[in-house]
Amino acid sequence: MPELISEHASFGGVQRFYRHESTTIGLPMRFSVYLPPQAQHQAGTRLPALFYLAGLTCTEETFVLKAGAQRLAAALGIALVSPDTSPRGANVAGEADDWDFGVGAGFYLDATQQPWSRNWRMESYVTQELFELVTTELPLDADRVGIFGHSMGGHGALVLAQRHPGKFRSVSAFAPIAAPSRCPWGEKAFSRYLGEDRTQWQQYDASALMREQARAPFPEGILVDQGLGDKFLAEQLYPDAFAEACAAVGQRLTLRKHEGYDHGYYFISTFIEDHMRHHAGILSGGL
Amino acid sequence: MPELISEHASFGGVQRFYRHESTTIGLPMRFSVYLPPQAQHQAGTRLPALFYLAGLTCTEETFVLKAGAQRLAAALGIALVSPDTSPRGANVAGEADDWDFGVGAGFYLDATQQPWSRNWRMESYVTQELFELVTTELPLDADRVGIFGHSMGGHGALVLAQRHPGKFRSVSAFAPIAAPSRCPWGEKAFSRYLGEDRTQWQQYDASALMREQARAPFPEGILVDQGLGDKFLAEQLYPDAFAEACAAVGQRLTLRKHEGYDHGYYFISTFIEDHMRHHAGILSGGL
Repeated sequence: MPELISEHASFGGVQRFYRHESTTIGLPMRFSVYLPPQAQHQAGTRLPALFYLAGLTCTEETFVLKAGAQRLAAALGIALVSPDTSPRGANVAGEADDWDFGVGAGFYLDATQQPWSRNWRMESYVTQELFELVTTELPLDADRVGIFGHSMGGHGALVLAQRHPGKFRSVSAFAPIAAPSRCPWGEKAFSRYLGEDRTQWQQYDASALMREQARAPFPEGILVDQGLGDKFLAEQLYPDAFAEACAAVGQRLTLRKHEGYDHGYYFISTFIEDHMRHHAGILSGGL
Repeated sequence: MPELISEHASFGGVQRFYRHESTTIGLPMRFSVYLPPQAQHQAGTRLPALFYLAGLTCTEETFVLKAGAQRLAAALGIALVSPDTSPRGANVAGEADDWDFGVGAGFYLDATQQPWSRNWRMESYVTQELFELVTTELPLDADRVGIFGHSMGGHGALVLAQRHPGKFRSVSAFAPIAAPSRCPWGEKAFSRYLGEDRTQWQQYDASALMREQARAPFPEGILVDQGLGDKFLAEQLYPDAFAEACAAVGQRLTLRKHEGYDHGYYFISTFIEDHMRHHAGILSGGL
């Protein structure tokens, strides 16, 4: 069982922060869990859960503090799980030189290149070790788990949901890095984590993955929100590339573009309710 | 006009951060303002506003990031104004030695003792300079302003509302320092800001002020929420002293005590909606 670092009453439920020795990462890792009041009041039942993946420079605390999701999680009876964004304390040379690579920038993939491949294994960590941990140690239903995220975490959500069919039943994203193979953030990270062979990058590119789908993997639809005042939109995000890929394979996508909204949590908190209801509708079989 | 540092779309309105040269403080000061969508869509009208005073170590950004109040402010058509918690950059010896005195700990009073009396004038700053600034430069209605706050800021709200009759029409608090004359935080701050004569302290003690009221100053009631898992409750906060003072003068008070909730923003965000509706009901003449 992971170590409970702190617990805070919140909207009738509890916001928890945990630390554990991750065998996948080879280092201690932290994550946060919000358990809605239903976790206490409906003993014996297992609740649907949502994994939230945060963006560059963030931690397991960012979503918890800034998104305002606990209110909806309590109302809808959904648990929230948020991991950290990378290994910390590996002491790999250069790991903290840049804010968009290394520490705080794990990109939710398993690195194949030295020196990153030893610890930077966020895909296996999230989809296997952490997934198994929270669905066995906490009253969460492994068959009703969704995933969403922001920016680098939006990339993570769209990619992990596609790479692990059946694991995440619902998916959405805020301002995702939707075609990382063609943007500076993705080129920098993928070239160092995955190597210079760009064919390998396609396995972690949400738009490229979608184009390879034989049929729409999420028949109940994907929700993506994007602010039009987002300073990273033109150079880094490419939501239209993902929309085109979805259209090519018949994947239903709701891509909403919001005048004036920027890349941060003011944007996310404004639209978090719509995302929570999107997932609840799928995970709970309608509201 | 103050300098607009940043602006973020939020729930159809805008979250702004300002900086200005404060003549009262004698230094640059920062504050935040949330303008709900009604500020744009109802040109020419002036909106009700709520001043929020934050606690020890906080800034003008704390409430903005953590409380989740913008959603309600947008729904209710109320503006939110939050100042910083003290002067910064005064370079008074010892100003940053303690987390509960000096920088980040202005206690919303006008200091009378050297070396603090030159800059630590948060009462005049909030109730005069900032109040006038936001109600003239922004579309806020000076006749429909309420005040609330947390911990040191809950003290500030309960005290400033009483010391400036008619200025703040509605008042509420989260875990206020409700009788600072008798708690360590208050004794430390008041002895240095106001001097050793404890009779002077009564002028900034919410419970003492209430006992001196000839009649109930807020006939529509005061709302106070307190968590019973708050580690500062027994030694620092004394909500029952304030309740007794209210009872003595016939001031209607709703004091709610919540099992398990602690002193932080998980507690505040859980109950922020009730506070927003309390103020809206008074400032808007019913909902």
